[in-house]
Amino acid sequence: MKTSPFAPEILAKMPVIEGVGFASIEAGIRYSGRKDLMLAVLSPQTVVAGTLTKSRTSSSAVDWCREQLAHGKARALVVNSGNANAFTGLKGRRAVEITAQQAAIAVGCTPQEVMIASTGVIGEALDPDRFTHLLGDLAAQADIDGWHDAASAIMTTDTYAKLSTRTLQIDGVDIHINGFAKGAGMIAPDMATMLSFIFTNAPIAPDILQALCSQYVKGSFNAITIDSDTSTSDTLLLFATRTAQIAPIDSADDPRLEGFSEALGALMLDLAHQIVKDGEGVSKFIAVHVEGAEHDVAAKVVALSIANSPLVKTAMAGEDPNWGRIIMAVGKAGEQADRDRLGIWFGDIEVAKDGEVAPDYREELGAQYMKGAEIAIRVTLGIGEGAAVVWTCDLTHEYITINADYRS
Amino acid sequence: MKTSPFAPEILAKMPVIEGVGFASIEAGIRYSGRKDLMLAVLSPQTVVAGTLTKSRTSSSAVDWCREQLAHGKARALVVNSGNANAFTGLKGRRAVEITAQQAAIAVGCTPQEVMIASTGVIGEALDPDRFTHLLGDLAAQADIDGWHDAASAIMTTDTYAKLSTRTLQIDGVDIHINGFAKGAGMIAPDMATMLSFIFTNAPIAPDILQALCSQYVKGSFNAITIDSDTSTSDTLLLFATRTAQIAPIDSADDPRLEGFSEALGALMLDLAHQIVKDGEGVSKFIAVHVEGAEHDVAAKVVALSIANSPLVKTAMAGEDPNWGRIIMAVGKAGEQADRDRLGIWFGDIEVAKDGEVAPDYREELGAQYMKGAEIAIRVTLGIGEGAAVVWTCDLTHEYITINADYRS
Repeated sequence: MKTSPFAPEILAKMPVIEGVGFASIEAGIRYSGRKDLMLAVLSPQTVVAGTLTKSRTSSSAVDWCREQLAHGKARALVVNSGNANAFTGLKGRRAVEITAQQAAIAVGCTPQEVMIASTGVIGEALDPDRFTHLLGDLAAQADIDGWHDAASAIMTTDTYAKLSTRTLQIDGVDIHINGFAKGAGMIAPDMATMLSFIFTNAPIAPDILQALCSQYVKGSFNAITIDSDTSTSDTLLLFATRTAQIAPIDSADDPRLEGFSEALGALMLDLAHQIVKDGEGVSKFIAVHVEGAEHDVAAKVVALSIANSPLVKTAMAGEDPNWGRIIMAVGKAGEQADRDRLGIWFGDIEVAKDGEVAPDYREELGAQYMKGAEIAIRVTLGIGEGAAVVWTCDLTHEYITINADYRS
Repeated sequence: MKTSPFAPEILAKMPVIEGVGFASIEAGIRYSGRKDLMLAVLSPQTVVAGTLTKSRTSSSAVDWCREQLAHGKARALVVNSGNANAFTGLKGRRAVEITAQQAAIAVGCTPQEVMIASTGVIGEALDPDRFTHLLGDLAAQADIDGWHDAASAIMTTDTYAKLSTRTLQIDGVDIHINGFAKGAGMIAPDMATMLSFIFTNAPIAPDILQALCSQYVKGSFNAITIDSDTSTSDTLLLFATRTAQIAPIDSADDPRLEGFSEALGALMLDLAHQIVKDGEGVSKFIAVHVEGAEHDVAAKVVALSIANSPLVKTAMAGEDPNWGRIIMAVGKAGEQADRDRLGIWFGDIEVAKDGEVAPDYREELGAQYMKGAEIAIRVTLGIGEGAAVVWTCDLTHEYITINADYRS
């Protein structure tokens, strides 16, 4: 597979977060020659928040996490790639339970404190005997510097490991937020991430952590789309080890949350963008801004209609400033739009205005702009104050090549 | 462009319909070396019914037809390909008015009796002076055997002309229904056809014609999808010259309507299937059947979710029986579904049952089935009695090739 043109030259250096260690191994679940099983070991007092796929055919691991998020405690995270353990019926449920039990023994906690995620092929049984015997050794080897290996072990068709880190100070103490994610295909809002795990040492209460997670997921992981397909397995988990030696943050009004929120939001957006930039077959990173909609939700519907349109995405792949297809996508979205008030911009170039091509627009300007790797499309509807941004990538031959024989 | 593997070896022979004549010409609107302007001349007493795109950015021609359908009378139809006259503001409206005026003079009717359709590039001004001077000669040349040329003149990225005909007898008199259509890309329900024109000599009242049109469009043109993109220009018009010498059919309860309805429904379905079979880059014709949904609307939502999924469509292109992606598409549709009651069939092969792979299913069976050119996917939800069928094609490299440089 061709590496994304957006792949970073070197991976971000991740600071240690006290109370978080990783180990990963080649368990041979599906892939060979690469790691496909990851265990994160978390210190006592770790709390967890998260957002899970809204798919009606969610995987057994997602169902398990949904149950465990209710109590908000976590001591371990087990992730395998190669098999999604989705649509695997009672066997799938049993595989999750065995995994939780074995990880609990390995780490020294209750099965309910083990979070689990699986990604890969849907509909094939995941045999827990293939890998659960490895968990004891993994727990013993857990390494505070294991971030890069952990981010690689959860990849499927990703072409690079996606990591992000932020550090801020609260009460003179370093607070770190580290996260990693995998994406690549079957990426569409609710949730868009496939898998993303974020860790911090901040002593934040679980309900506040959950509120922050829900707040920032909207504009980050739920504002990206690769191919409009929503996975059965999408999982975002946010762990706080609470190991930083500062007074606990137990109230949503705590002023110390401000810098933390901002850093968390920026980190989530960074990981979400990295997922788009490694979308299957990506050659362009596209931001779709919609303004002047009836309300924000309408703006997002229109933005997604543009971002998910195969005709818009193939035009971008062909570096064709085909703004007629953007008009089409606005029209099909079903939200209020008045042709004679519509405006379209490519970056700073005004393309269309008041229902017609803009007076100064020339095709060469658009064609030149499309040659860039990062494209901004802006649509002004002229109806109200609603606005939204969605990020996507183009639709290329490489996407077809990857997906026409993913399993073979 | 590669001709669709489903292209017919010879075009259907179309019977004469008294009161309908066609002329077409190379006007050079955008294409060269092919006809791109078509005029149909209709006898007095012709009535018209139709269904138009629900796009909020519909073309000027669509807006014009919507106004004229209110009175249900037609004497001429002007269609151009190469330019959709959409998002062209007041100039676009003016182009339509001039076209209607010139066609009215050519044919000898009022401008309001002229129906107009345009297909092609969106957002470029359509200059009526390029072609309206030709309408007088076209009217003089109108030919009762001009069906094949007319069907070709309206094509854009279509690789074959799509025609269909049915003949039945009412009161011992031959009643003909002839239709043609163009499709290829930007094809998704409401409406899916881009352009389709159907003609009959039956003396049917306009309100009955409209009721039949609306009844059959649901299961035909609105049950197909190529790429989930809805055009600004989709137009289905159904003309009745009322030239057959039988007593008028003025009541919806007239028993003579039965055979006519059936023939019209079959013809509309045939044309809709032909559009899918000439979908851009098509290699497989795919029927998606959903049964056991909460209600019919839910079944159609699920069927469209499967039919529009890029991951399902690329799997079909790769002849990969990847039923996990069907599970994914059921899950993301948002309608009621219970993983443990789901069933999936490929043709007569039971693939999944009760939330797991079916006991007798083997991958080789699915792989063998996928080699066929026509694929039937059947999903049973086990919730209620709702059912729907949707037709689509696969997503291939050829689709990307066609759409990454359509305008260049």
